[in-house]
Amino acid sequence: MRGSRPSAKERREAVLQALRKIGSDIYDQIVRREFPRIKMPSRSTSNILYDRDIKQYVLGGKHIIRSAKNIRHIRPFTQMVWVASFVEELVRSNKTSTLRDVFYSAQAYEMNFVDQAESDSIITDLESVSGLAREDFNVFPEERSAIFGDLTIEYTVPGYEGRRLNLTSHPDGVMIGPALTNSEFVECGADKLIVLEKGALFTRFVEEKVHERFKALIIQTAGQAPRSTRTLIRRLNEELGLPVLILTDGDPWGMHIAMVIISGSANAAHLRKLNTPNAIWGGVWATDIIDYKLPSDPLTDLDLKRLEELQRDPRYGEDPWRREIRTFFKIRRKAEQEAFSRYGLTYIVDEYLPEKLELMEGS
Amino acid sequence: MRGSRPSAKERREAVLQALRKIGSDIYDQIVRREFPRIKMPSRSTSNILYDRDIKQYVLGGKHIIRSAKNIRHIRPFTQMVWVASFVEELVRSNKTSTLRDVFYSAQAYEMNFVDQAESDSIITDLESVSGLAREDFNVFPEERSAIFGDLTIEYTVPGYEGRRLNLTSHPDGVMIGPALTNSEFVECGADKLIVLEKGALFTRFVEEKVHERFKALIIQTAGQAPRSTRTLIRRLNEELGLPVLILTDGDPWGMHIAMVIISGSANAAHLRKLNTPNAIWGGVWATDIIDYKLPSDPLTDLDLKRLEELQRDPRYGEDPWRREIRTFFKIRRKAEQEAFSRYGLTYIVDEYLPEKLELMEGS
Repeated sequence: MRGSRPSAKERREAVLQALRKIGSDIYDQIVRREFPRIKMPSRSTSNILYDRDIKQYVLGGKHIIRSAKNIRHIRPFTQMVWVASFVEELVRSNKTSTLRDVFYSAQAYEMNFVDQAESDSIITDLESVSGLAREDFNVFPEERSAIFGDLTIEYTVPGYEGRRLNLTSHPDGVMIGPALTNSEFVECGADKLIVLEKGALFTRFVEEKVHERFKALIIQTAGQAPRSTRTLIRRLNEELGLPVLILTDGDPWGMHIAMVIISGSANAAHLRKLNTPNAIWGGVWATDIIDYKLPSDPLTDLDLKRLEELQRDPRYGEDPWRREIRTFFKIRRKAEQEAFSRYGLTYIVDEYLPEKLELMEGS
Repeated sequence: MRGSRPSAKERREAVLQALRKIGSDIYDQIVRREFPRIKMPSRSTSNILYDRDIKQYVLGGKHIIRSAKNIRHIRPFTQMVWVASFVEELVRSNKTSTLRDVFYSAQAYEMNFVDQAESDSIITDLESVSGLAREDFNVFPEERSAIFGDLTIEYTVPGYEGRRLNLTSHPDGVMIGPALTNSEFVECGADKLIVLEKGALFTRFVEEKVHERFKALIIQTAGQAPRSTRTLIRRLNEELGLPVLILTDGDPWGMHIAMVIISGSANAAHLRKLNTPNAIWGGVWATDIIDYKLPSDPLTDLDLKRLEELQRDPRYGEDPWRREIRTFFKIRRKAEQEAFSRYGLTYIVDEYLPEKLELMEGS
């Protein structure tokens, strides 16, 4: 496999070290009779910048200091120290958790969060202090995405270490959860990755043997791709060198699902490696609606409002995005991926997909 | 394995025969120079009755005749004949489809549906004429649910016939799609089935080895269980004799997720075998919120309105339903499954689950 990824054990050690470093720094400050403080990059809107070269949002140079000397800082300071110690325990004991679980768990420690928004924001603070994603310290999203195709993985999670699975074993697809996200890639017979927004199309692609006919791995995101799925897509692209084609519904929401996989989100401007800059959005484009004479529905007011937002977003400044937004405004219609069924159930695989795969050449 | 289920081939033949019977009846009527007509049970509200014995909605004795003689009937009559011929082709060619796909596919045949609601309703007509569920004629929902545990299945779908998979192979769970739904159960090391509303809890249960410690299969429904998941739960209960415990959030929506698994929905009153009457809803109960002193949130106006609807629903006439609705009204609070994390991440498995498993004794 391409690239030299540290082993699961090494990665775990690095996470524990980063968390312990935060704790020992605070400890040292107290011993030196200083008010403990933590320096972190500012995540205010004015410090979130779009970097055209790496095609993603990044944080600028501004930092903030959170200090126990400032009475308004004591609460978030304490909360962050608690979150760091809680996730250190998670990683040490090889358990996973969710954002929601962290919020409730706090009560066992008499930590006080007004609501989950508050605990989520402290977890994001810890991400930007440590430079680690919350998945690194075992806080996972509720999983929904699935994968299928000729990739053999080796698990690293407790009880499964060293066990292997080929991802064609179950034709309905296997879930992308902590075990898959933390696995090593052992052997891959595919030479590309196709990412689909919808489960229905996933089933169609498996039935039509896209994995064999086009040597592809297939992922369904089930709507907006969870962060761990985006990390997996990045790893498949980076470690295995697989080019990535994304197919979504032909509307502003589908466009943005593709964009977040490619460029990440402003919310995660403090993190790298969550996005896949060289992935390609293959459609359904607004121009496809015209070219393929697809059954379509009028854009709603909400759709149009969203399109206007996207038009102002710097990530949408280039083609195909710019061109497709313009075309959506012109035709004022949208189409789903299933709309290709008007030409028969297999048309999307037999005709549309090969056309779109040509976009990947040279990418 | 308990019960004598017809083989995949036999089931497929039976579906094809039922569909062809509809066609040949129509053909015979035309040959006899009669206007073709189809008789089917009425699905109007007045003909949907709650059967307390089998704990589900059923259709009463009223029938309607849809006849080509009646000009208002010609459109739905033709549509139903087309749907029957379309799904006959699906089954014959071993392909699956979705409700959405059927709607779009119609356009390839110049069949005219105003919207998907119209094609969905015709598919339901065909269900009640044929007595088959749409999954029997290969129209599946988008998959979202997943399963984990010591069950070995044997696939019957094309390309996988005879291949087997043990459902502990992937610790994130495998998706419940057409391949799993159509599989045969070969060997099962579990003696119960636990159904969870949420993915987060599913991951927790797998991590805490609920499948080994409690010899359980674990299913996550990801919200309201799709019909094919409900069919699978029924099969696990019926064919393997596994008692079923359902755990949801403690609010009217969670209650109803459990109820639909147990008693089915009024929409499917024309079908049997989609529900599991002897499954047990184990919580989160309103009384659990009190007994376990769970962190809780106030019921919203929408929650209260939904509770009032449930109180009027005949399926909610007995305990624990009646008691829990009363308690919800009294405490006017709700709690999520993750709320148990306030006692530590493993409390729900170590303490709460064993308590609830006692409900299954003698069931």
